[in-house]
Amino acid sequence: MSKYVIIVAGGSGSRFGSALPKQFLPLNGVPVLIRTISRFAEADSSIHVIVVLPNGQIGNWLELCGAQSFFLAHSIVAGGQSRWQSVKNALDSITVSEGDLIAVHDGVRPLVPVSVIAEAFRVAAKNGSAVPCVPVTDTIRQVTDGSSHILPRRSLMAVQTPQVFNAVDLKKAYDAPFNDDFTDDASVMEAAGHKIALTKGDVRNIKITHPDDLKIAEILLKNE
Amino acid sequence: MSKYVIIVAGGSGSRFGSALPKQFLPLNGVPVLIRTISRFAEADSSIHVIVVLPNGQIGNWLELCGAQSFFLAHSIVAGGQSRWQSVKNALDSITVSEGDLIAVHDGVRPLVPVSVIAEAFRVAAKNGSAVPCVPVTDTIRQVTDGSSHILPRRSLMAVQTPQVFNAVDLKKAYDAPFNDDFTDDASVMEAAGHKIALTKGDVRNIKITHPDDLKIAEILLKNE
Repeated sequence: MSKYVIIVAGGSGSRFGSALPKQFLPLNGVPVLIRTISRFAEADSSIHVIVVLPNGQIGNWLELCGAQSFFLAHSIVAGGQSRWQSVKNALDSITVSEGDLIAVHDGVRPLVPVSVIAEAFRVAAKNGSAVPCVPVTDTIRQVTDGSSHILPRRSLMAVQTPQVFNAVDLKKAYDAPFNDDFTDDASVMEAAGHKIALTKGDVRNIKITHPDDLKIAEILLKNE
Repeated sequence: MSKYVIIVAGGSGSRFGSALPKQFLPLNGVPVLIRTISRFAEADSSIHVIVVLPNGQIGNWLELCGAQSFFLAHSIVAGGQSRWQSVKNALDSITVSEGDLIAVHDGVRPLVPVSVIAEAFRVAAKNGSAVPCVPVTDTIRQVTDGSSHILPRRSLMAVQTPQVFNAVDLKKAYDAPFNDDFTDDASVMEAAGHKIALTKGDVRNIKITHPDDLKIAEILLKNE
């Protein structure tokens, strides 16, 4: 039984307002993506790591690994135009067997606790899927046809990564053509008819989207 | 036409893990609640400020105001066991006329932009209600009967404060008995049959809930 993680680091940095893509920016001295990969190695050194990067950033990444003396084994796959295409490219690069598990993780979630990774693999081995979630703390309204209504907060969960799936099922699910409802990998699996099992996420497992998030991550990391 | 803001600062600090309630903690040198009140004064100096505090904290607050030379006029009301009861106590302390507007704001949202306050009052004057919202960036799943399904993210909005309402309608809505679905003031108004108008919130308008949030607020404040 093999375990994989596809780490999606497809961002080109243009929306983040920095010259370097955000996944390469230093977080307390260590590039975000190196921190992310290291968490999976720490959780389970048998996990095969596949990193998806924009084609134009692969050279920079290899230079960065050299400069940081980062030599954890990982495969590199060129990303596509969308997150979905990037994951699909990574899936196309591997051959899987029944019983294998594939995690898909955002490259810009460098603080993912090792316990969240371990639990997601454990639940997926049993149920075929595992999606880490945390309770929603905001009041959420749903807008429909120009009016809006409140959603019962106790029923809402915010979805994180790594999302872990039966490898054979995930590859098959990604054979379907793209549709706009695919906002994460669980939605792709769900569209293919699979039930999704939820696992415990962690509020510190933030996604670095805005420049302020990097400063927030620094604080969270210092408090670990 | 009078304008009011009820600033709910009912927290006792026990969940926050500090001796001082979080609304009294310094944020770049100035207590959170003083920053919050100052934002409303800055937005419109004609707004009457009503601060709801736990009964046991009113003395501490007055001392803090003295120590900080903070003399902006405001009324103080003792809070209740729940947020709903605290708002109700504040509403019971005022007499309103048709055309008056009441904002309800979380005391621990000290970064609320003046533009968000002004826009909420403007929209409420026209529509009877105004609820600042920001788009939801997380993927959200709804859990029902042991299974879960993804919600279309583009239709979801996270609700902030200040929520501003027609004063007469809000007082009447608070005459209804409490129910568990009252997670904010808009939900109380909705239960009384009122339509809710949404306005533009701001991602920087964070609620200080965890100790880390205070550090995040310091960063956001420095970048204003």
